[in-house]
Amino acid sequence: MPPRHERALAALRATGAGALLAADPGTVAWLTGCAAAIEAGPSPFALGPFAVMHDDGTVVLVASEDDAAPDGCEVVRFAGFTTAPLDRLGNARAALAPLLRGRTVAIEAEAVAAGLVAGVEWVDVGDRLERARAVKDPDELQRLRAAIALCDAGQAALRRELTAGRTELELWSSVRGAIERAAGQRVPVLADLASGPRTGDVGGAPGDREVAEGDLVICDLVPRLDGVWGDSCATLAVGEPSAWAVAAHGRCREALELAIAAVRPGAAAAAIDALVRERLDFPHHTGHGIGAAQHELPRIVPASASVLETGMVIALEPGLYRDGEGVRVEQVVLVTGDGCELLSGHDLALT
Amino acid sequence: MPPRHERALAALRATGAGALLAADPGTVAWLTGCAAAIEAGPSPFALGPFAVMHDDGTVVLVASEDDAAPDGCEVVRFAGFTTAPLDRLGNARAALAPLLRGRTVAIEAEAVAAGLVAGVEWVDVGDRLERARAVKDPDELQRLRAAIALCDAGQAALRRELTAGRTELELWSSVRGAIERAAGQRVPVLADLASGPRTGDVGGAPGDREVAEGDLVICDLVPRLDGVWGDSCATLAVGEPSAWAVAAHGRCREALELAIAAVRPGAAAAAIDALVRERLDFPHHTGHGIGAAQHELPRIVPASASVLETGMVIALEPGLYRDGEGVRVEQVVLVTGDGCELLSGHDLALT
Repeated sequence: MPPRHERALAALRATGAGALLAADPGTVAWLTGCAAAIEAGPSPFALGPFAVMHDDGTVVLVASEDDAAPDGCEVVRFAGFTTAPLDRLGNARAALAPLLRGRTVAIEAEAVAAGLVAGVEWVDVGDRLERARAVKDPDELQRLRAAIALCDAGQAALRRELTAGRTELELWSSVRGAIERAAGQRVPVLADLASGPRTGDVGGAPGDREVAEGDLVICDLVPRLDGVWGDSCATLAVGEPSAWAVAAHGRCREALELAIAAVRPGAAAAAIDALVRERLDFPHHTGHGIGAAQHELPRIVPASASVLETGMVIALEPGLYRDGEGVRVEQVVLVTGDGCELLSGHDLALT
Repeated sequence: MPPRHERALAALRATGAGALLAADPGTVAWLTGCAAAIEAGPSPFALGPFAVMHDDGTVVLVASEDDAAPDGCEVVRFAGFTTAPLDRLGNARAALAPLLRGRTVAIEAEAVAAGLVAGVEWVDVGDRLERARAVKDPDELQRLRAAIALCDAGQAALRRELTAGRTELELWSSVRGAIERAAGQRVPVLADLASGPRTGDVGGAPGDREVAEGDLVICDLVPRLDGVWGDSCATLAVGEPSAWAVAAHGRCREALELAIAAVRPGAAAAAIDALVRERLDFPHHTGHGIGAAQHELPRIVPASASVLETGMVIALEPGLYRDGEGVRVEQVVLVTGDGCELLSGHDLALT
């Protein structure tokens, strides 16, 4: 049993329930390796995929015929795309029922649809699973490295393509194309790609603004590969940056170095946040875990109660913003036995 | 009150409940105009957005601070992105509670999370809402036309860029870039972009296969703009198509013409399906409604009980496939008072 299944089983047992039902795409990928199609929203043909764990630690993927199942994963199938009459809820309920029968079920109450557990006694195991997901297994680390390599490919494409006169969307198209070619497949990507005045507002999605000489561009790329998310941010100057931008960028990089130097098992997430926040005034988190979701525990924020553990993977992203101008740099590190390992490979240079 | 609100209210009243709670992104967009961010899966900061309708017909958007709300829409906000402690479920429950208090609630049982209605008496209104969504209001039609124009832009880009030696992903990058530039924003797109032997399997996502001389390419583009989905398909030959491809393409276009000629109020969806299916043998639906979801009622399939009504919008997509080769053509029509209007503007030519 992989360590993450042991942690999930401990979460299940702590609830006293006989089975666990997960429906959050991150948790399902974490337990089964099945990365749900998410880019176009819910399927009109089928609910799910779902993961069920029994109190002996067995994990079953419960998925429609439209979902790809990883090798070696036990799967219970239900109908997907069809020309026959549709019964999305009935199909999923029928597939799940024999797996949950006669037991209190520990569910992700945020993610499991009410219709799936009508008449079933349930308890919420969401918070426990969230904590169980924070430390990564070796195979997850491998996938994280691959997802972060996609970030590097995307950031390199922007650096190559960025010139005054191109729109944010044109640049975005190049960046995303580079990510998807590197992956050999379509890839969901959450991203900021904002230029000029919008960098002062922390970021935002690419639009049809033309990048101009003297602009800053904030590029924060968060792609998912094989059910695991990478993360990265760089700020690039088009032509000559302002004196403020040069100074702010230097301070952000310095703060990032300091934060990374403080990462080790036993370090308090709140202390790392404080280290950065006493040097820089910015309106967002200093960082966060990544893995099966873009944003996981530990949160590197002022009120965080998290203590770092070996195997956690953290994105650190100090920024500085003023009216009309902003910079942010972000790298991902793995908490090792005595410090951390830098996983990000992208260039942070401003110019 | 727009006609769709009247239909939603009738659905609510038919359940006998005092309020309606919708969580499916399509239904929320349909009721409120708020198009949820879907491309990167669920937000790690907040649930929702949700739509609530009361039994007097009032509609309220219940959304985190991260969701954009359309002008003129009544909104109840709850916390989104934050550096403070997270309570996704608690925040959404607290925002919804005063709107649902003391009433049986009609919910979308497939989409509303169990934790949101714990302790609340509910009935499922999902099927009734699905039926209520089939006929489109004038403002929805306007958005549908805009979404279909994005399909046209994407299809034109493929026709322009398609040459042997380029990979499916390179072509996809051009197609999606054209769609997003035409929209002036990022756009979720569901798509088949499959070349060569994979066209025989109906389609599939773009991969790293290089398109070769003599290939067919099936391109089925389904982009969402302002919460409404377009749809379109064309099959293009690279160089000289096979005799089978030319004949199959001709038969598909003929079947499409016949189907379109049969579309009028009162026509049975099953009869239109039969008209196509007695000429062509293919493994998928003849067509389906589009709107707030990529696939809505009426379904144009053998067992459909739907009868077409003025204001329905239908994608029709006959195809023919054999081992290693396949073609499909698709256009969208609006059911008018006495027939239909073609909404699609893309080129269907094989070469």
